[in-house]
Amino acid sequence: MTTATAPAPRTLKLGFVLHGVGAGWGDWRHPEAVTDASTNFRFYQSQAQLAEQARFDFLFVADSVHITPRSSPHYLNRFEPVTILSALASVTRHIGLVATITASYSEPFTVARQLASLDHLSGGRAAWNVVTSWLDGSARNYGRHQHYAHDVRYRLANEHLDVVQGLWDSWEDDALVRNQETGQFFDAQKLHRLDHQGEFFSVEGPLNISRSPQGQPVIFQAGASENGKNFAAQRADAIFFHADSFEEARAYYQEVKERVAAAGRNPDQVFLLPGFRPIVGRTAEEAERKYEALAALVPIDNAIAALARPFNDHDFSQYPLDAPFPELGDLGRNSQQAASDKIKQYAKTHHLTLREAAQWYARPKRTFVGTAEQVVDEIQRWFEGGAADGFNFFEALPNTSLKDFVEWAVPLLQQRGLLRTEYPASTFRGNLGLPFPINRYAREPLAT
Amino acid sequence: MTTATAPAPRTLKLGFVLHGVGAGWGDWRHPEAVTDASTNFRFYQSQAQLAEQARFDFLFVADSVHITPRSSPHYLNRFEPVTILSALASVTRHIGLVATITASYSEPFTVARQLASLDHLSGGRAAWNVVTSWLDGSARNYGRHQHYAHDVRYRLANEHLDVVQGLWDSWEDDALVRNQETGQFFDAQKLHRLDHQGEFFSVEGPLNISRSPQGQPVIFQAGASENGKNFAAQRADAIFFHADSFEEARAYYQEVKERVAAAGRNPDQVFLLPGFRPIVGRTAEEAERKYEALAALVPIDNAIAALARPFNDHDFSQYPLDAPFPELGDLGRNSQQAASDKIKQYAKTHHLTLREAAQWYARPKRTFVGTAEQVVDEIQRWFEGGAADGFNFFEALPNTSLKDFVEWAVPLLQQRGLLRTEYPASTFRGNLGLPFPINRYAREPLAT
Repeated sequence: MTTATAPAPRTLKLGFVLHGVGAGWGDWRHPEAVTDASTNFRFYQSQAQLAEQARFDFLFVADSVHITPRSSPHYLNRFEPVTILSALASVTRHIGLVATITASYSEPFTVARQLASLDHLSGGRAAWNVVTSWLDGSARNYGRHQHYAHDVRYRLANEHLDVVQGLWDSWEDDALVRNQETGQFFDAQKLHRLDHQGEFFSVEGPLNISRSPQGQPVIFQAGASENGKNFAAQRADAIFFHADSFEEARAYYQEVKERVAAAGRNPDQVFLLPGFRPIVGRTAEEAERKYEALAALVPIDNAIAALARPFNDHDFSQYPLDAPFPELGDLGRNSQQAASDKIKQYAKTHHLTLREAAQWYARPKRTFVGTAEQVVDEIQRWFEGGAADGFNFFEALPNTSLKDFVEWAVPLLQQRGLLRTEYPASTFRGNLGLPFPINRYAREPLAT
Repeated sequence: MTTATAPAPRTLKLGFVLHGVGAGWGDWRHPEAVTDASTNFRFYQSQAQLAEQARFDFLFVADSVHITPRSSPHYLNRFEPVTILSALASVTRHIGLVATITASYSEPFTVARQLASLDHLSGGRAAWNVVTSWLDGSARNYGRHQHYAHDVRYRLANEHLDVVQGLWDSWEDDALVRNQETGQFFDAQKLHRLDHQGEFFSVEGPLNISRSPQGQPVIFQAGASENGKNFAAQRADAIFFHADSFEEARAYYQEVKERVAAAGRNPDQVFLLPGFRPIVGRTAEEAERKYEALAALVPIDNAIAALARPFNDHDFSQYPLDAPFPELGDLGRNSQQAASDKIKQYAKTHHLTLREAAQWYARPKRTFVGTAEQVVDEIQRWFEGGAADGFNFFEALPNTSLKDFVEWAVPLLQQRGLLRTEYPASTFRGNLGLPFPINRYAREPLAT
C-alpha cells in the first residue's frame, strides 16, 4: 500500500475565443448575431460566464494592430485584449484569461507589468499569447516603415519573452515582509534587478509589482511556420494551431510534441489545442442545415478579402475569379508564412480557381458538425488519437454555438470523463496541472 | 418667458486616489491599514464602490515606471493603471476612471486603443492622466540610457496626445452601419487614416476600435513646472495640483485659469483640483490626535527617501541630518522640477536643517483636519474663494479616511448644495458638464 495519490486523469483543455461579431466574414449577418458584439461588454460577460459555468479552462482574445478598409468586421473594430480581459476578471472566478500581445510592437516592461497586474487582480489567471504580428501595416502604426523579417521577428520574440519572464521574477515570493512592528516592508535581498542588455531590448528592472499568484503567467503561442513551431516547442505552455482534418491535426501534434521533447521539455506539460467550430444540432440534418446557412453568408468579395490577409492584404481583384489560382511567387512568405504556403499548395493540388480557393479558405470548415453524440465522438477521436489535448472554441454560429455546445455536448463530455465537472485549483496554471515555477533567484528551492 | 433651462449649479468635482497601502511612507504601518492593499483587488473594489456611493466624479490611479530599493512602499509594488481600472469598470457604473500613463515610454497607438477600449467597456468613463515621467531610471526600463530633457518631454507629450486624439477620431460616430439586409458593415467614407509624421512619432492609423461613447476620453494633467502648466492649460480638461495652503492653491488656480483663457479656452470647462487629505473627527481634538498618530509613523530615514524622490533619488545620507539643508545646485531640475525647486526654496526661507526639511516634506499636511463642519467649511472656502473646482482625495488614514469622509462630511456637503446627490449623465464627460466633442472629420456638425 502506498500513500501516493493516483495522477489526475487526462481531461480536455478547452478554451473559448471571444471574437465579438464573429471570426468569420459573414457571421455578423446571421439572424442570431449581436451586431455590436465586438464592443459590447455585456455580451462578452455573458459568454465568459457561460464558458466558466461549463468549466472551460480559458478565454482567449486574439489581436492584430493594423486595419484597412478591406479588413474583416472582426478586425475592424474590437476591444484591446488587456482591457477586456481585466474587465472580465472581476466578473468571473476560475477561468483563465489569455491575452494576445505582439512582441514586435510592445515594450517588455509594460507587458510584464500589465500581465502581472492582471494575474494579481484575477487571483492567478493571466496568460500571454505571444505573437509577432504578420501584417506589414503594423509597422506603420508603430513608427517603422517596414515590418521585421520573419526570422528577426522570432529572435525578437524570444528576447522579449526572456525579459518579461525575467521581470516576473524581480520579487521573490516572500520578499514582501510587511512587518508593522519592525517597520520592515520588504527584504531588499529578495528584490532583483534584471539588467538585461540584448540585441533588441535593454531593460534594467526590477518590476514594480510583486511576484504574482502564478509565479509566472502561462505562455501561449500559435506557431505554424518552422520558426514558429520551434519557438512554441521551446517556450509555450499551450500551443494553438489550425487544422482542417484529424490527419492534419495529428501530423502537427506528433511533430510538435517531438520538438517539445527534443527541446528537453515534458510533452505532457505542453498542450496542443487546435481551433474548432462545432455546430451541434438535435439531428444531423439540423446541424447540416445550420452549417449551410452559415456558409451562404460569405459573399465572394469577402472571401477574396479573407484570402488576401495571409498575403499581406494583396489585391486579388486584378485576377479573373474563374481562372486557375494565380502564380504568386514568394508573396506571403514574410507575412503569415504557413497559411499562405498552405493556400498555394492546396489550390495547386486540387486545381482550384481563385473563386474556389477563396471559398474553401473563407467558409467555415465542416469538421465537428452533427448531433451532440457525433461531435463528442469526434472530439474523443482527436483527443485520444494523438491529435489534440483539447480545443480552442470559435463560435461558428454567432451567439448560438456556445449555448448549444454547453447545453448538449458538455454533459456528454462530462459523462464520458473527458471534461471535468469542477475546477481543481485556484489558478489557471493549477487547473492546467502545471507546476508552480520556482523563482530563478530563490536561494533554496521552495518545498514542493 | 424663455424655454432655456437654468444652467446646472456649480458643484464640487471630487476624485479619489486609489493608492493601495497609502501614498505616504508610513501609512501601511497604521493599525487600520490593509498591508497587502496595493495588489488586493477586493480592497480596491470596496474603495471604488464607496466613492461611487458618495457620488465622487472619478477614481484616479497614479503611476511611475521605475523603482529602486529606496522607493516608498506605494511605488514598489502596485497595480498597473489600465488593468486595475478596467477591472473596476465592471464592478462600478457611474464613476470616471482616470489612468495615468507616461507619454515618454508608451506607444500612441497602444494608448489610444487601450483607453478607447476602456471607454467602450465602461460605457464612457475613461480618462487619461498624461504624465511625462520624472525619474531618470524610467529610461533604463525602456531601452534608453537617459531620460528626455524636461522641455523635450513636453514637446513629446504634446505630439503623443495629438496622435492619440487623432486616432480617437478614426471612426466617425455613425461609421458602423451594420445593415444585415444589405451586408454593409461600415461606411468606408467615415473611416479615416491619420497619417501622422512628426518629430517623435509616425503613425498611419486608423485605430482598430470605433469611436467611443465619450467621443474623446477626458484628459487630465498635473503640470507644476512652466512647461507643465502651459501644456495643462492648452490640453487638459482637468488639472491636478499640490498646494499646502489656501493661498498657495489660489495663486496656482488664478494663474492657470488665466493661462487657459489665454489659450483661447473656456476657464469654466477646465477643472483645477488640488490634492487633499482630509482627516475628519467627531471632535477637533479627535481629528488632531489622528493626525499626530499618523505623522509619527514616518521614521526619519523614510522621510529622507521621500525627499530624495524629486531629486531623482539623490543619496542624501552623505549630509549631516542636523546641519542646514545642503546646497544642491541644479539637482532636481530635470526630474520633478517644481517640487525640487519648492523644497530648496522652503528650506532656505525657513532656515531648515535636512531633518526638518525631510519631515516637513514627507509628513502629511495639516490642512483639512477637524470636525466635519470645520472640514466642510474649509472645502467651501477653497471652492468659493477661487482656489479649487474640487479635490483629488488622498486617504490620510489608510482604510479609514474615505469612510469617515463619506459618513460625516458628504451629507453636509450635499445639504449645502456643494455636492450633487445623483449622477446627472451617463458618461464621465457628461457628469463633468463637458460637451460631446464633434469628430474632426464629420462633414456636418452633429446637432447640439
